[in-house]
Formats: sequence, structure tokens, C-alpha cells
Amino acid sequence: MTMRAAMARLVYDAQAQIISGLEAIDGGAFYKDPWTYASGGGGLTGVLEDGVVIERGGVNVSEVRGPLTDRMIQVLAIDPERLGLDSHTATFYAVGISGVIHPRNPMAPTVHFNWRYFELESASGVATWWFGGGADLTPYYMDESDCVLFHQHQKAACDAVDAGLYGVLKPAADDYFYLPFRKEHRGVGGTFYMKRSDLPADAWYALAEGGLGSILPSYGEILKKQFMRGYTDAQREWQLYRRGRYVEFNLVSDVGTQFGLASGGRTESILMSMPRHAMWSYNREIIPGSPEAELMAVVTQPRDWVSASA
Amino acid sequence: MTMRAAMARLVYDAQAQIISGLEAIDGGAFYKDPWTYASGGGGLTGVLEDGVVIERGGVNVSEVRGPLTDRMIQVLAIDPERLGLDSHTATFYAVGISGVIHPRNPMAPTVHFNWRYFELESASGVATWWFGGGADLTPYYMDESDCVLFHQHQKAACDAVDAGLYGVLKPAADDYFYLPFRKEHRGVGGTFYMKRSDLPADAWYALAEGGLGSILPSYGEILKKQFMRGYTDAQREWQLYRRGRYVEFNLVSDVGTQFGLASGGRTESILMSMPRHAMWSYNREIIPGSPEAELMAVVTQPRDWVSASA
Repeated sequence: MTMRAAMARLVYDAQAQIISGLEAIDGGAFYKDPWTYASGGGGLTGVLEDGVVIERGGVNVSEVRGPLTDRMIQVLAIDPERLGLDSHTATFYAVGISGVIHPRNPMAPTVHFNWRYFELESASGVATWWFGGGADLTPYYMDESDCVLFHQHQKAACDAVDAGLYGVLKPAADDYFYLPFRKEHRGVGGTFYMKRSDLPADAWYALAEGGLGSILPSYGEILKKQFMRGYTDAQREWQLYRRGRYVEFNLVSDVGTQFGLASGGRTESILMSMPRHAMWSYNREIIPGSPEAELMAVVTQPRDWVSASA
Repeated sequence: MTMRAAMARLVYDAQAQIISGLEAIDGGAFYKDPWTYASGGGGLTGVLEDGVVIERGGVNVSEVRGPLTDRMIQVLAIDPERLGLDSHTATFYAVGISGVIHPRNPMAPTVHFNWRYFELESASGVATWWFGGGADLTPYYMDESDCVLFHQHQKAACDAVDAGLYGVLKPAADDYFYLPFRKEHRGVGGTFYMKRSDLPADAWYALAEGGLGSILPSYGEILKKQFMRGYTDAQREWQLYRRGRYVEFNLVSDVGTQFGLASGGRTESILMSMPRHAMWSYNREIIPGSPEAELMAVVTQPRDWVSASA
């Protein structure tokens, strides 16, 4: 089986499994929207809006191919010549899964995960390939045990592939999920990697498989634990305000969103990462010592949630 | 009086006048927040949130200066060498006013306006200057007479300076306020120009003065006419959904926002353009022949609201 075929099967299987698990928690059904991509391939967008537990969430897979455009070359920051790609015949192939779940209850964090495999080729064959991915958690109120559980699962998926990996991918997530104009990280991080081909492809495949397998045992359990907790209108408003930051990160800073929107990706599938509702408040006051201040302390100063050593 | 001083007086006076006019309509008071800029200068942010008429709005002025950084050179798309700027001593000066008003009533449009003056200089003196600006209207439901009134005032401000100007700046606004990944314009446009120095500075100053003077007689009147109209929950939801597009444009496409956030501008002042609330819906259905479809027809196909000839 080619890596294309293996990754395509992995992401479609994982989508079905994760959606089933989330449906069992929510009680509602994801809307499944298959689509095709003009230059080849397509995807399956899975969406749940206004569920009991999930306010807005999506788990999407896509497998697309087409000519490598100048805009994509620019966004991917690649040099086709150096890669031995004939710019007239160069094509890309991308397969991936991407999920974002925004629960209604402010005590339940948002999760994001994404794993993908990319190939560039021209008439002479595959010129280069890489993997990317990771998962991260964005709480609105701190529950340290959630953060520890999530990171433990991410670390276990890394450790199964390479003992040093989590120690690299965890700080990479802290760096990546960062809003410089807010001096804030998006949440409590997780793992993140882009364009990696420095281990055998099978190792990166195993990391995607392990990471995907960890979503329900980690995030699913967090959601089940938190979604019934009581909350006030003020706590809901805080959540909507912090979701404004989520919007800011995804639209201003996120490379995947930029790449997707610039490369003619399917806008509604890409912007499944947007929350159902977001809110902005000018210079919102945060009372020292409050639960809101506790969250801000964490998003302005990343912590180690598990020991980096294996 | 230098152009710096003249523009600074113009934007501070216009801010005071426009805020007064809007306060008279809303009944509430703008919060005035003065701030200083690390490398020199500062500004005055004027904000109204949760007013009776204005759900979130800001009218901000800033007058800032500092070293010309590499990031600014990149975002401004300038070649310091070609401009005769010594990169070690090059500095920028920028003065401007920027306003966005998001009314609560979905029958009342959002307005945006911005006028600014920019200088680059190095040890040897002013190397270059330019003006930029314009104003545009974003309705949620169509009232053609609002669009005509707004464009008439914009055109009159242009005509007072140069008979051919509106015919250039109106299509420029249609081009600029466009979301390629949505294939939608932001609203019904207005005027837009960037980095213009091809008329005498006095002419560009007069255009800023005329444009600023037109805001209350055009947008103020539209707001007074619309803010008392009745609306349904479904119409409010449509407005919040369309405000999601406003967020998308400003964070993904708007050069001013990108420049401001990248150049260490004051984030909370820049993001005064964000609505109080925004909402996202997957593949939202629009019923043919509905008022929502009528709006979509206009934002997907710009119209001429007034004859371009003087």
C-alpha cells in the first residue's frame, strides 16, 4: 500500500471513529457533507452545530491534488528548483484530517487536532514528501487534571515513535499557538510539527495514528467530565470573549488556515474552526486572583504538564 | 503649518465632532482612552460598547513615529534604497483617524472610515509621503436609499478635489473590500485609496477633510433613520452571521489591520473594528427571493449607486 493510500484510510477511519465517539457524548448527529476538489480528489466534512454538548464542531478529512501554483509555493515557503521540481508539471497531493470542537459549556475546553501528509511531484516522480500535525487544548477555565491528561496522551503517542519527540513537539506547540499582538498563547498547547521528513515515513504515520487514537481517550473523557458542570452567564460571556482570541489566532496567524484559504481550499470546511459565537470587549478587565486571571497566567506563561523524559 | 500638524489637527477635531454626533444619536458616551506609543507619539481611542443604538463602535486617532523596521518595509511593500532612505536612520511618521460603528439594529449598516497621512524620512530629510483613506458601508439588509446617500456624499467629497477621483476610488473600494475565499465584497463599498501622492498634498488633505465632514451627514442620518426599526430574532441572527464575514475580512485581508498588528500597533485600538458579537454557521441556507438573498446579490455583484460623472 502506498503512503497515500495508507494515510487516506487512516484519516477516514479516524474521522468515523471520532465522530461516533463525539455523537455518543452529545446525543446529536454530525452532518456529513462530501465534496469534490476542482483539480482532483475531495473530502468529507463532518459538522455538528447547536448540539447539547458541542456548540460547534467539525471533523473533516480531505484528499486533494492539483497543480502547484505560485501562491502555494509562496505559502509553503518552498523552492521548487532546489527540490528538482519542473514548475510546469509540478503537482501537489495532500491528505489530512482536521478537527475542532467548541463545547457549549465554558468549563469544557476546545480541542484542535490535525494530521496530514503532503507530496510534491513533477513529471520525473515524487520530489519530496512531509508530514505535519499535532493536537492542542484551549480551556476557558483551568482544570489542571485536564491539561495533564491531554498532554499525557500526546506524549504517549510521541514516545511510541521516538523518545525525544515530545520534548521537541511540545515547545513547538507553545511557539506556534501564539498571538504575538496579544502576547498570549492560544491555550495550554499540546504537540505541533510541520513539514517533517527527518524520520522514516512509517514513523510519522505511526505518530498520526497514535495521535488520532488518543483524541477520544483524552478529549472525549475531558468533555464527559465537564459538560454537565454548572456555569454562570458571566462565565459564558468570558468563554465567548476568549473565543474571539481563537478567531484571531486562526484568521491572523494559523498557517493551515492561510494556506487553505489561499490555495482555493473549501472555505466552509476550513472555517469549521470558527466558533459558533465570538465576542469582543475593549480592554476587558480581569480581576486579580479570579479564575479568569488564573487562565491568563497559563496562556501567558506555558507550563510543563508532564515530565518531558520518557 | 506643516502637513503633519495640519493632519493631526484635522483628525483630532473630526474625532471630537463625529463622536459628539454619534453620542447625540445613541444617548450614551464614548469612553476616551489616551495612549502613548513606545517609539514616539500616541493616540486617543474612543469606544462605545453596548449602547442603545451602537452595539460596538470606535473612533480612534493616532499620531505615531519610530524607526522603520524590516517588518514594516515588508508590509508597506517599499524599497528603502530606491526612496533614498538610509536604512539605519530611516523613520516613519503616521497620523490618522479610523472609525468603525456596528449598530445593534440589523436594519442599520456598519460604517468604516479611515484617513491617514504617512511620511518616511532618514537623516537627509523627508524621503516620501503619501495619503490613504476612504469610507465604506456594510448593510445587513438592503435599503437602496442608504447606499445612494452614502455614495453621494463620498462622491461630493471627491468631486470637490478632482472631477475624476470618485470614478477611480469607487471601483478601488469594490476591489479592496473583497473576500476572495468567499467571492463576496464586504458591503456596498464607498471609496478607497492607498499611498497616493500624485496630487499636491493639499488636495489629499482636502479629500480627507471632505470625507470626514461627510460622515455625520451621511452615516449619521442613515443611523437615525434605521435604528428604531423593528426586527426579528432571525434578522438579528443574520446580522451576527454577516458580522462573521466582517471579522474574516478584517483579520484575513485588511492591509491596515495586518500592518497595525505587525508593526506593534495598539491591538485593542486596531481591533475596535471587531463587532461585539459574531457568529458562524456551516453552509447557511439563503432562501431565493428573501431579503437575505437580496443582500447577497449586492455583495456578490457591486453596483453603481450614483453616476460617476461629476
